[in-house]
Amino acid sequence: MTNKDVNIIVAGVGLTAVGEHWEKSLRELALEAIVSAMTDAGGLKPQAMYIGNMLAPTLSRQSQLGALLADFAGMRGIEAMAIEAGGASGGLALRQAYLALSSGLVSTAIVVGVEKVTDRVSNEVLAAQMTSSDADYESVHGVTPTAQAAMLMRRYLFEYDVPRDAFAGFSVTAHANAVTNSNAMFRRAIKPDTYAKAGIVSDPINMFDAAPLADGAAAVILAREDVLPGKLPHPSIRIAASSTSIDAVAIHDRKDPLVIEASKHSLDEVYRFSGYSTADIDLFELHDIFSIYAVLSLEAGGFAKKGEGWKLALEDQITRTGSIPICTFGGSKARGDTGGATGLYQAGEATLQLQGRAGENQIHDAKIALVQCLGGTGATAASHILARVDTG
Amino acid sequence: MTNKDVNIIVAGVGLTAVGEHWEKSLRELALEAIVSAMTDAGGLKPQAMYIGNMLAPTLSRQSQLGALLADFAGMRGIEAMAIEAGGASGGLALRQAYLALSSGLVSTAIVVGVEKVTDRVSNEVLAAQMTSSDADYESVHGVTPTAQAAMLMRRYLFEYDVPRDAFAGFSVTAHANAVTNSNAMFRRAIKPDTYAKAGIVSDPINMFDAAPLADGAAAVILAREDVLPGKLPHPSIRIAASSTSIDAVAIHDRKDPLVIEASKHSLDEVYRFSGYSTADIDLFELHDIFSIYAVLSLEAGGFAKKGEGWKLALEDQITRTGSIPICTFGGSKARGDTGGATGLYQAGEATLQLQGRAGENQIHDAKIALVQCLGGTGATAASHILARVDTG
Repeated sequence: MTNKDVNIIVAGVGLTAVGEHWEKSLRELALEAIVSAMTDAGGLKPQAMYIGNMLAPTLSRQSQLGALLADFAGMRGIEAMAIEAGGASGGLALRQAYLALSSGLVSTAIVVGVEKVTDRVSNEVLAAQMTSSDADYESVHGVTPTAQAAMLMRRYLFEYDVPRDAFAGFSVTAHANAVTNSNAMFRRAIKPDTYAKAGIVSDPINMFDAAPLADGAAAVILAREDVLPGKLPHPSIRIAASSTSIDAVAIHDRKDPLVIEASKHSLDEVYRFSGYSTADIDLFELHDIFSIYAVLSLEAGGFAKKGEGWKLALEDQITRTGSIPICTFGGSKARGDTGGATGLYQAGEATLQLQGRAGENQIHDAKIALVQCLGGTGATAASHILARVDTG
Repeated sequence: MTNKDVNIIVAGVGLTAVGEHWEKSLRELALEAIVSAMTDAGGLKPQAMYIGNMLAPTLSRQSQLGALLADFAGMRGIEAMAIEAGGASGGLALRQAYLALSSGLVSTAIVVGVEKVTDRVSNEVLAAQMTSSDADYESVHGVTPTAQAAMLMRRYLFEYDVPRDAFAGFSVTAHANAVTNSNAMFRRAIKPDTYAKAGIVSDPINMFDAAPLADGAAAVILAREDVLPGKLPHPSIRIAASSTSIDAVAIHDRKDPLVIEASKHSLDEVYRFSGYSTADIDLFELHDIFSIYAVLSLEAGGFAKKGEGWKLALEDQITRTGSIPICTFGGSKARGDTGGATGLYQAGEATLQLQGRAGENQIHDAKIALVQCLGGTGATAASHILARVDTG
């Protein structure tokens, strides 16, 4: 939803390198992003901290992250809490900050996404990830997030008679975009041939269809434009619209497994609230932890008809020079999947694009960006439209 | 903070019986509270659901509760998410709903607290609870929440030269208040003598100083008074002020272990925002999972000087006819400690008091209620003042 009265702007961005950070604790990793965002915002002090995280309670045996991270950042006394909705946690934390600022009761907030996973054994990590599925009807049977994505992808291939290799472009594009992103975990480009030869993880998903879960932290600082103490170091980017939505957690309970209703609903809303349409969007930071979600998100956003999202990759439409560039810094696939922090990487990267600070990853004259992250297999979606303040 | 433009009101309350609900799943328990609150609000439809929960991800292997519970309640498409800050989760969820409604972007919201613990073995429950402490500096050493409260209580007894049995009144009062609360887990009154003879759990904490963790769910529906479709079934109660605050998670990092700064700060704020002072408060639903926290909360709220909170119990000031009645339905101690749901039981019970619907637990002519819940050992505090709309 949009607040007509005042611009809620992104005042600072802090992104940390995604990878294996065995040398840093959860709080140290988060602090790195926090300090970086605060520096970027010219020292603007946040009055509140909203945290997107999905795995710390299960994997690091650490909950109450609000107090933990805000205290460690030297912010005793502020408002702070963790917000959880699986992989959509970061986007929902952004949403809560947006609502808090829109209320007028909070003037500046920092939204922090953090995930620390690589120093745990893989079966622990998997079990933790599986809590985002329906515990009573899905994960209890041992179905993993990868298996769920595989079932969706297989159904998609069957339903629309799509050749298996049609998905290659999503992985190729993501890896190409990550080459020039110094925060990305994988910075080597891959060829369609590499994709074709990749080992199968969960048929039909191969190694390059799946994003690797990794450690990372990202933060953005939001501020009400009307109460800014002075000029910010970088051009202001406003949140033009914000919406979140939910659907059934269990895939078998959904109306159509190949339509992510939560995604579609929240995207419809941000278009409606902002007045923008698909044609206005210069880039789309979407949730690509598996290629199939990128395809379904593009369809939910109206960039392709149902069953035709895969064609955008074949036609080079999703590259940085295409009609709808996605995952312009490599997405979860090549930057690394940071779970509950994903939404903040997306918002941060979109901001850099709109500010013209994306370096070699810059989308020419980007004015309006769409960002969306998903929880679980798409049960929760958080969508935002970011726009240059000089725009519309 | 307070919104001057419009009243945010509690439109409905749903409280479920606290106890061992092995026959109900997490979502079924939550649904009971949701349906009850919606019925109480005359069928008012929530546009968003904010959930307070602390243990589901670790204990029930279930995260993404927003989508799970909203879908189960037949609310697909709405905004829904879980908010976590240990035992303060429920209060923070209430706070987020308040901010959302204050923004004007959401008109009605349901705030749900749910906790399901008794069908797990006790060491699992304890390990899950311990995630609210500092994982790197507290729980790693095996210190439990009970041990932490015991250290605080011992320090208190020593520092202010207080007799051990001075705490009896907190337990006696809570159990007396629970006798007439059909939702309470323990409905038998106890005598000071029972307290004195109780077995020690963690010296100096005895069995009656500690609240038992139990299953429960509570929900309140908030609405903006300006957009209500019609007259509500019950008198409107407004949220007169809302504030949350954090301090260091680890007790050893705090300035003074016997001052819960987060509690003090957020209470100072709700007084300031509402214009009310301690003298105006007719009842105080505080966080009494251990007697020591009740004492420290009373001191933080200005109802007693530092080191003198315990005297209020000796003087019968905290009973239903005292100057500052606390835990009027039995509190966590006798109603049962429902973890992240506590803040919603408190808000719900305070609402019933202000509406004159508290039955035998009614505080005569209650107009203004203070509610506060704490996370961990007080690292997070969420405070709200609820008031009758005809008041001030």
